[in-house]
Amino acid sequence: MEKYSATLAMRLGKIWNWMADEGISLVMLEDTETRRDQNIRWLTGHPQDALLFISLNRQAGDNAVNGQAVLVAWDINLAKLCAAGAPVLLASYSDFDRKPLNAITAVTQKFDIPYGSKIEIPPVTPYPVFLDYVGELTNYDILCREKGIAAEINKLRAVKDEEEIAIIRKAASITNEIIDLLEKNVRSGKIKTEADAALFIEVESRKRGCDGTSFETLAAGPERSYAIHAFPAWTCAPFGGQGLSILDFGVKYGAYCTDVTMTFARDLNPKQEKLVNLVEKAYKLALSMAHNGTPAKDVAAAVDALFAKSKKQMPHGLGHGIGLQEHEYPNIRNRGENKWTLEPGMIFTIEPGLYDPIHGGCRIENDILMTETGAEILTTSEIIRL
Amino acid sequence: MEKYSATLAMRLGKIWNWMADEGISLVMLEDTETRRDQNIRWLTGHPQDALLFISLNRQAGDNAVNGQAVLVAWDINLAKLCAAGAPVLLASYSDFDRKPLNAITAVTQKFDIPYGSKIEIPPVTPYPVFLDYVGELTNYDILCREKGIAAEINKLRAVKDEEEIAIIRKAASITNEIIDLLEKNVRSGKIKTEADAALFIEVESRKRGCDGTSFETLAAGPERSYAIHAFPAWTCAPFGGQGLSILDFGVKYGAYCTDVTMTFARDLNPKQEKLVNLVEKAYKLALSMAHNGTPAKDVAAAVDALFAKSKKQMPHGLGHGIGLQEHEYPNIRNRGENKWTLEPGMIFTIEPGLYDPIHGGCRIENDILMTETGAEILTTSEIIRL
Repeated sequence: MEKYSATLAMRLGKIWNWMADEGISLVMLEDTETRRDQNIRWLTGHPQDALLFISLNRQAGDNAVNGQAVLVAWDINLAKLCAAGAPVLLASYSDFDRKPLNAITAVTQKFDIPYGSKIEIPPVTPYPVFLDYVGELTNYDILCREKGIAAEINKLRAVKDEEEIAIIRKAASITNEIIDLLEKNVRSGKIKTEADAALFIEVESRKRGCDGTSFETLAAGPERSYAIHAFPAWTCAPFGGQGLSILDFGVKYGAYCTDVTMTFARDLNPKQEKLVNLVEKAYKLALSMAHNGTPAKDVAAAVDALFAKSKKQMPHGLGHGIGLQEHEYPNIRNRGENKWTLEPGMIFTIEPGLYDPIHGGCRIENDILMTETGAEILTTSEIIRL
Repeated sequence: MEKYSATLAMRLGKIWNWMADEGISLVMLEDTETRRDQNIRWLTGHPQDALLFISLNRQAGDNAVNGQAVLVAWDINLAKLCAAGAPVLLASYSDFDRKPLNAITAVTQKFDIPYGSKIEIPPVTPYPVFLDYVGELTNYDILCREKGIAAEINKLRAVKDEEEIAIIRKAASITNEIIDLLEKNVRSGKIKTEADAALFIEVESRKRGCDGTSFETLAAGPERSYAIHAFPAWTCAPFGGQGLSILDFGVKYGAYCTDVTMTFARDLNPKQEKLVNLVEKAYKLALSMAHNGTPAKDVAAAVDALFAKSKKQMPHGLGHGIGLQEHEYPNIRNRGENKWTLEPGMIFTIEPGLYDPIHGGCRIENDILMTETGAEILTTSEIIRL
């Protein structure tokens, strides 16, 4: 994935076609410290800290849709290694005083964007910054829309191609090796603390060629598992003792994330036992409903209804897509409007959980690939009774 | 810092005063996955994933400025532990369908915000989302400004109070213990790879009571030190061998960050030697200029000028404030407008660096506390010749 490839060129081609349909001459994508965007990596292979400008060339009477792209990278050395090759030109962010406004102005000139054209900037552009763009690019029509270029790429990314599925399968198989070792080492007492568990995952993932973990491992022993996301993410506190311990982690392999949660249960009291049984029941219910063509909202609504019967409420969604990010489309949730339908090539988590401020929390989470014939469970985490 | 304290109440008092001066009835702060904001932690002690609404009460003829505040937390269990106590009320984000727009509407009603009042939302609010607020809160004047509430809090945070200085001193002393151990273990050969270095820091920081590292440790052996921020942040590649190895890390203790960089140099060729000498010279120059009352830009400009004489360019700023975030005010940079003046209570990094795509990179970074009488260097990282 790190060199400019046919896959990346094909993705860029889709963007040019979309731009032609929308009548847009130039789009800007931004990946900076406060506004991260993996879409640049998806289109160029460059990992982080860059702007990407894509312009459309279309001659009258010419059916071929194509264009140009320039990656303005904070670290030009890194860009030369990761994003080299046509049709993406490279430039250094320092040449523009590291200001997006300077860069976009230079690009409109370099690519001869005709006055009056539509230029789209990222939908996360803050309102005051949007005003700066409008003030500077007075000869253009500046678009900043939730349903624009970013939404289009995110939608494309929700359905993985064969290359992506192969990488995520490999990431899942590494995750599963680590899941097995975690179970073994908690049972044997080699892993006794949250730190033991978190560091074990760091080491074992890198040993197997991963970029690292896909997010900071959340290791919460019985004293801290009441929180959805323990804070700090892990400490030197005991892990795996009496009660419920949650271990939420993922690996990043070839830029792609997994995301799983194991719960370790030991000597449960009746309330903890009830929590665990309910979460297991919810997990099985969700899997039994996750078919090709099913609305994602229906699956999540069924789990919410199951919990509601026991007067419980899950304080988070049932699941989410995974890929270059640990959270991406499709949404697998009941809350609000959710128009996603499960379709082949989607890879997402199913992760029912319940949390009690006194008795602790329980969550089970695996990664699911939707295929023509149904859900394939890629990962093997479970509730482990010690 | 984790319970509501006199310090936090004093901070909230400053905000109410500022709101009175600005004529603002309600402000919203937002800390969510895609828009992080440590200002909520600074004001309430609550670590993450919440909205904070602050409203102003001022009776005509009443000089006492005060008001109310409500923290809308994603994880209400965590909020009860971290942010309990008056004058901050708590609510669950789930009660508002986890939508900021629902929450703000409910708060305007609960706090009886008079029609026509000014309500300020975060300056990072995306333009399309800003339109949603304006569309929903039609009876109010919605402000979304770069120089508003967030800028005010960030400015206040740039000068640390005694409590904060004490915490950062402790964080720095832990950092220094780890720096010494890193040098010893790289010299002895116990640390041989980037992974060895990164994991060592993870373990040693937690052992000493830290929340963790303040960012993902950047460990780049000679093959990878050409990059400002190596990607991935660390791998199983060799560290400390012939050439230049960079180790950029920090610890987070009591929510406060340190940020240091060590460079390990072994058997340098003449070009590498020149790079190292130049960076050391720049570091000394910067320190010699960092006085109480000096414009930060002047310090950074002097370093840029020094590098320019050798036809070198530093691809990043000279330094930045540290505190609840690893990057905050003041800016210590030459680029663009920079009006910061070094003043007592500011804590910031000085981190000159140069990077060569063939010969590797070199950076030295320490954390500096400005006092009435001058710069106090809190941390002890250096360029270590092996």
